[in-house]
Amino acid sequence: MPTPARTPVTVVGLGAMGAALASAYLAAGHPTTVWNRSPEKAAPLVERGARHAPDIRAAVAASPLTLACLTTYDATLAALEPAAAELAGRALVTLNSGSPSGARAMASWATGHGARFLDGAVKNVPTAVGEPETLLYYGGDRTVFDEYGTTLRVLGGDTQFLGPEPDLAALYEQAVGGTLLPALLGFYQGAALVTARGLKAETLVPHTRKWLEMIISVLPLHAAEIDRGDYADPLSSIEIFHAGIPYDQELGTENGLDVRWHEPMHDLLRRAMAEGRGDQSIAALVELLRNPAGTAGGSGPSGG
Amino acid sequence: MPTPARTPVTVVGLGAMGAALASAYLAAGHPTTVWNRSPEKAAPLVERGARHAPDIRAAVAASPLTLACLTTYDATLAALEPAAAELAGRALVTLNSGSPSGARAMASWATGHGARFLDGAVKNVPTAVGEPETLLYYGGDRTVFDEYGTTLRVLGGDTQFLGPEPDLAALYEQAVGGTLLPALLGFYQGAALVTARGLKAETLVPHTRKWLEMIISVLPLHAAEIDRGDYADPLSSIEIFHAGIPYDQELGTENGLDVRWHEPMHDLLRRAMAEGRGDQSIAALVELLRNPAGTAGGSGPSGG
Repeated sequence: MPTPARTPVTVVGLGAMGAALASAYLAAGHPTTVWNRSPEKAAPLVERGARHAPDIRAAVAASPLTLACLTTYDATLAALEPAAAELAGRALVTLNSGSPSGARAMASWATGHGARFLDGAVKNVPTAVGEPETLLYYGGDRTVFDEYGTTLRVLGGDTQFLGPEPDLAALYEQAVGGTLLPALLGFYQGAALVTARGLKAETLVPHTRKWLEMIISVLPLHAAEIDRGDYADPLSSIEIFHAGIPYDQELGTENGLDVRWHEPMHDLLRRAMAEGRGDQSIAALVELLRNPAGTAGGSGPSGG
Repeated sequence: MPTPARTPVTVVGLGAMGAALASAYLAAGHPTTVWNRSPEKAAPLVERGARHAPDIRAAVAASPLTLACLTTYDATLAALEPAAAELAGRALVTLNSGSPSGARAMASWATGHGARFLDGAVKNVPTAVGEPETLLYYGGDRTVFDEYGTTLRVLGGDTQFLGPEPDLAALYEQAVGGTLLPALLGFYQGAALVTARGLKAETLVPHTRKWLEMIISVLPLHAAEIDRGDYADPLSSIEIFHAGIPYDQELGTENGLDVRWHEPMHDLLRRAMAEGRGDQSIAALVELLRNPAGTAGGSGPSGG
């Protein structure tokens, strides 16, 4: 039997991530069509063998599988609108950032035009696209995931199907994404602290790595507490964190650092103490996040 | 040659961490003396062979090496004060939480009484004490670290000496510690989000693990940017994060979650945009943390 030909793919949107996707397909030998609103971004890919479609309609028509990697669902909808008639029977995969509601609107539009729709997320930086440990996950039409599994795995070895709801990737992306800026800011604050003492920020990296690995190691325990709704046997209690508030403040006053970004976190700890949760696990803070103070009945989807 | 006898150790303070330290020494066959203000906490260790000293002075006198693991430097000083006369020539290691200024005051008191002083930090949970990958680091008297290296490594395989300044462990602890609550809160917010959809918080764990591993992988690049003070070639720009602010807010309104803890982080992004840093690396936020708005000249140690 001859080796099956590589699936032709179309990549729409050639920002850093879209270009990385197209580049991975070129490297893997897939016939690759690209399209970008500003065509000059296609040039380096065309040099490597990509075909630049003259318009979005021709781009979608060129392949059974189109991956759109624009900034938002609105931008994706706007870009794909002129190609709507070409979507029927084709597979469309979106890989932009956005909210679950945006993903649902996107899915509704795409399936309304007869597309087989999958929404996904690349959980790494563009330079990691194609690596064996790079995680991508998808929600939506399972037949797309199954039929194009080999092709999707070109983008990362850890490629997962979350379920048939088309907003699941956006949901999980939103769920993990809330950790990025806070974790980075924590590192930057530490870097400001050690560099003020004449030490290099790079000396902090192994320490922060270990610290984040420690945090990773306790997540299953915290998740189990949240799933049980039982915070009575804590690894780390709210009162321990509450007792640390003056240290955060001293860090600011002693080193001239702006530590005000901790203040609403301190407020959460104070509210938890006031609710009598001092001896509960720090994971009980999830209950406060679910019930915004001053937002009566705010625990449901209609709370806003 | 006979195997050298294990160094006798004294552990002062038998909270969760102190008890774990004493337990590790008992398991490793060290003659172990313990002392705690509430003596009932010593009982399980005494059952396993520890000797409970009648008072703090006898506890310190029992061993050439005392490890104190109380909640704060103030608590440590108060506990050790009656044993001051026993400290001369002995090694004292403190392993509590606290600020660099607290560590310096502790060191000054201890060396003033003739102790050879080392301050350290256990960068993991009590249940991980004694594991090969558990990180502990120390700053202070190098001769203590060298002479008792084997004994200190009983507590964790990754035992490091940071330098001769006795506040370095507290400094790095403070520097990495600022990441814990923000990272956990990010996870709890994600847990609130997925559980509101009927999914278990545990389904989020592998995603958050990957996400934190991705963050770990970019720290060296961010540290290098900070050490160079050059943010012009960003992996992720401030404007990308700034563009994500409405998604954080939508997350709150759409799911009834309290996302107010992001607000000061959003303010930092807006200030960075206003300073014309939009196309700089997100690591440039360190410059804003170093220069609190409204705290003129706040970048030095006298800024508070």
